[in-house]
Amino acid sequence: MEHCNVVFKPQGNVVSVPVGQTTREALYLAGLSYDFPCGGNGKCGKCRVQVSGGTSEPTAQEHHLLSEAELAEGVRLACHTRILKDTEVLLMEGVKKSNILTKSVTRALELVPVVSKRYVELPLPHLEDQRSDWQRLQDGLAEAFTDCQELTIQLSVLKGLSATLRGADFKVTALIQGQEVCGVEKHDTTSRLLGMAFDIGTTTIVGYLMDLHTGRELCHVSALNPQTKFGGDVISRTAYSNQKNGLEELHLTVIETLNRLIETAASRVEATPDDIYALSFAGNTCMHHLFLGLSPRHIALVPYVPVVSNALVLAPAAIDLVINPAGRAFVLPNVAGYVGGDTVAVVLATEMDRSDTMKLAIDIGTNGEMVLGTRDRLVSCSTAAGPAFEGAQISSGMRGADGAIDHIRFGETMELSVIGDVKPKGICGSGLIDLVAGLLELGIITKPGRILSADRVDNPKAAPFLDRLVTFENSPAFLLVDEQATAHGRPILLTQGDIRSLQAAKGAIAAGVRILCEKQGIALEEITEVILAGAFGNYMDPHNACVIGLIPKELDGRITMVGNAAGAGAKMALLSRDEFRRASDISKVVEYIELGAHKDFNTVFAYNTRF
Amino acid sequence: MEHCNVVFKPQGNVVSVPVGQTTREALYLAGLSYDFPCGGNGKCGKCRVQVSGGTSEPTAQEHHLLSEAELAEGVRLACHTRILKDTEVLLMEGVKKSNILTKSVTRALELVPVVSKRYVELPLPHLEDQRSDWQRLQDGLAEAFTDCQELTIQLSVLKGLSATLRGADFKVTALIQGQEVCGVEKHDTTSRLLGMAFDIGTTTIVGYLMDLHTGRELCHVSALNPQTKFGGDVISRTAYSNQKNGLEELHLTVIETLNRLIETAASRVEATPDDIYALSFAGNTCMHHLFLGLSPRHIALVPYVPVVSNALVLAPAAIDLVINPAGRAFVLPNVAGYVGGDTVAVVLATEMDRSDTMKLAIDIGTNGEMVLGTRDRLVSCSTAAGPAFEGAQISSGMRGADGAIDHIRFGETMELSVIGDVKPKGICGSGLIDLVAGLLELGIITKPGRILSADRVDNPKAAPFLDRLVTFENSPAFLLVDEQATAHGRPILLTQGDIRSLQAAKGAIAAGVRILCEKQGIALEEITEVILAGAFGNYMDPHNACVIGLIPKELDGRITMVGNAAGAGAKMALLSRDEFRRASDISKVVEYIELGAHKDFNTVFAYNTRF
Repeated sequence: MEHCNVVFKPQGNVVSVPVGQTTREALYLAGLSYDFPCGGNGKCGKCRVQVSGGTSEPTAQEHHLLSEAELAEGVRLACHTRILKDTEVLLMEGVKKSNILTKSVTRALELVPVVSKRYVELPLPHLEDQRSDWQRLQDGLAEAFTDCQELTIQLSVLKGLSATLRGADFKVTALIQGQEVCGVEKHDTTSRLLGMAFDIGTTTIVGYLMDLHTGRELCHVSALNPQTKFGGDVISRTAYSNQKNGLEELHLTVIETLNRLIETAASRVEATPDDIYALSFAGNTCMHHLFLGLSPRHIALVPYVPVVSNALVLAPAAIDLVINPAGRAFVLPNVAGYVGGDTVAVVLATEMDRSDTMKLAIDIGTNGEMVLGTRDRLVSCSTAAGPAFEGAQISSGMRGADGAIDHIRFGETMELSVIGDVKPKGICGSGLIDLVAGLLELGIITKPGRILSADRVDNPKAAPFLDRLVTFENSPAFLLVDEQATAHGRPILLTQGDIRSLQAAKGAIAAGVRILCEKQGIALEEITEVILAGAFGNYMDPHNACVIGLIPKELDGRITMVGNAAGAGAKMALLSRDEFRRASDISKVVEYIELGAHKDFNTVFAYNTRF
Repeated sequence: MEHCNVVFKPQGNVVSVPVGQTTREALYLAGLSYDFPCGGNGKCGKCRVQVSGGTSEPTAQEHHLLSEAELAEGVRLACHTRILKDTEVLLMEGVKKSNILTKSVTRALELVPVVSKRYVELPLPHLEDQRSDWQRLQDGLAEAFTDCQELTIQLSVLKGLSATLRGADFKVTALIQGQEVCGVEKHDTTSRLLGMAFDIGTTTIVGYLMDLHTGRELCHVSALNPQTKFGGDVISRTAYSNQKNGLEELHLTVIETLNRLIETAASRVEATPDDIYALSFAGNTCMHHLFLGLSPRHIALVPYVPVVSNALVLAPAAIDLVINPAGRAFVLPNVAGYVGGDTVAVVLATEMDRSDTMKLAIDIGTNGEMVLGTRDRLVSCSTAAGPAFEGAQISSGMRGADGAIDHIRFGETMELSVIGDVKPKGICGSGLIDLVAGLLELGIITKPGRILSADRVDNPKAAPFLDRLVTFENSPAFLLVDEQATAHGRPILLTQGDIRSLQAAKGAIAAGVRILCEKQGIALEEITEVILAGAFGNYMDPHNACVIGLIPKELDGRITMVGNAAGAGAKMALLSRDEFRRASDISKVVEYIELGAHKDFNTVFAYNTRF
């Protein structure tokens, strides 16, 4: 796929995106949280940006919402403007306060990456100074840099040391991690120091290539987690890992993909994997174990115990990752079997661990993890609620890819937004939430979740949609798109079963929130901010999430979308050794509540399945 | 070769020796420094021991020197009694004060081996205690043992952790080195903890199998350093290492021999290499580099700089050593390119670093290293003097093996002692010293080193030997054994050239001693004790060494032989982490004098070639 670079002003963030992607998607990939009040449907005209060419022609909606003068100046709607060439985009509306990458860019002033390079010019050996090569380097580094005292070195690095020193007139650059000299290079190579932060999701892997010398993001890459072919969720993948060679297979397949992403990202900036000296990884505990080749067997069995929760620093060769052999891989710590390094990274990115006010973070991916608290106490839990929002257990469900109905708005007619300007194939999580919220507000679906027959709907606003109430497999259903209009020639329906699945998913999340509040001893209303992390959280309509009770209604209006905060946390852990250390502190202080073992869970859950 | 065990009383040391070895050799192998005033020639009758059977029949000398009553009680001469079966030997004369192994046995009370095993019984995980497996182990160890705080673990060990814990009901033994858990075993295996200390000499490798749980030596093994086939000394071996694949070849060949020795030693006590968890290594700097696969190239070139001098701790797999994979290899530090870990080990074993009185240690192996000083200051230097004493550069020279004339005594006749009760093949270092010392005292050799013709010798005591003065290749020579009496049918001669070689060797050592004194600002007489380390130092007659000026005459009577002190130091570094750390301290405080660069060396050397 061809890519082009987008520079966002005034922030200066650069991202590389596939040709044809919307500016909205580019913003998301850059980690910039821009406001899309209408959900990116080109309805509100609020997501204005100013572009300098290299984009698609204005759409009908843009002509409708923007003046000719504005269009002449390059003002466009981010949700409708596709990137065709390298371009600059001026953000006219201001980036949200919870903007992640801006935060890390601001911190670039305190850039102290997890691996650092130190250049020294050493005195030449002579008969009055017969120090060993290593002692000479050690002394030279200790004299020049206060943070280079009592360094260690491995035998493998010692093997090349003499030749490197003598091949560069004893002017060399040391790669340092902690107290260890991990590599030595001829001459001054301090400006060549790339790193890559990975968010290993159950479904998607995203990698951010970072310049650790400047703190800037150079590009990002992503891929479907190839383990998906062995099972869509952590339970089925764990089952596969218990089979003969299953663990090895799952481990190798993800490593292969990571190496491919590393190669791709490097080549995109005309670098090689050898220029990459540090990797950071955030993922849920099961992905973490499989990635490391550790068996997740006991995470899946009561009492759900992982092998390790601590942060790890590894030589890349230990897990067959191909970067500079002197580099290191930094694996973020986990909290528990079902609250992993990705959640730790969300807390890190959003600084909940230093918050004075009560915040709730919810990261809905394939699993749904949440953390509630202040700097004084953080409690967390996890639900397996995610799959419903990724299309599983929903008759016409699908991921947020081309052909997915991602937003629905009921007015006089029903307006659908379909990803990719193709015929619809199904409905993704954000669309499902809009749909059910709309049908609830129209009175077509009841609080207990029943789809009424047309004759029992009494809201006049529902009238235009009553002919969409059909019967499917002896149960009531709502016809979203009829078979003529779909890509596959089958109708897209919302069935009574789909609603039950959604109720179970949203009930679990809502119950989790309430039990966390109980643990903190607070009322729901005391939560000052709900931080929605993850791609799904970023695309869904927060008001509608409250309408269906996925997020308690009491919190409507307090929701901030922070995009891929797990990825942002992984980046921060790469750019700053203090942030990597802080991730360990977070993993140790966050308490974990095992919902299944909580005495009230079933009651609270059942109650919360109601809309 | 068949072996049997000898238990020395009252010390309790046990050694395994090949059947047929003398008790004297067994004492040496056990590290026990017993007194052999006549040099082990069965002349003085002083080396009395009491045996409980399992030995050879009394020899003629023993019948001559011991009473029938004594013989009936099992009293024997250690120099003449060969071990044929497992036996106990009571040391009647007392072990010398400088006895190395006794020292380490005394310290066994403070036994804190470099790797330790800790047994813990962990609480089982349940829903109220979902700590990760590693956290559980970490916490359990930290609670039970004060020295087990903030432990780390490697990914490779984590991989087996869950299965090990659950296969043993969470009752496990952790192998710990420093702050790292290197391995975890089911149940209580604390008593299974062997280690092996190696002295890697240029010519000989000796390994001592130690029980780290009790501090006892179980057996020792030795082999010729197989690198000998690529060159007899460090210079020729370095040259070979500079050739294509030469370094790799030298490295692998010594590793192969070490692995064979490990296997042999383990099998001798009915153990396997898997029971061995720690190895320690002392060797000169060149052997150290080759053993680690580091190029010694720059040790051989001005200004003689090694790659590394620090102590190293390595995973055995890093250098292909086959012991328990959780074990560690502890490499003693070096002082400089020509004063290595073996010399550090000698200082460690003899505690020169804590001495209030001025001591001189000389370790004559293939090289001759020496250290002079007190706790306040230690200075060292090295000479390439050794080869002459190992047979190189001496026409009839050979190592101290079967057929070597190892001792010579001039009285009315000339009495030779030959190793192994075979026809003589040549003369080894200790024999050479006796021979030249005798001929000097008889006036057959002059102070400047000339062999006189028979008519110019005026000492009447020389008369019986004057017919041995012959001409060899147009120079005078002394006929030690005529061709009829040798194993190979060639005469064994001392030539004028041999004397010149010996003069160069002893002159270098004596010059080194004098320059060290100058550095310390002391007169020779201020040295209170000369510590002779190494096999050669142990076998040579110390008085004769002074007669020829190998050791300055001023020091005659102050010489202590300490046997293989390098090996003893390596053992101590294995038995005590404090001793291993102390070796690093020693390597840092010992100053190194480059003799070749010393302004007075040539003058002092030339002066000291005189007898």
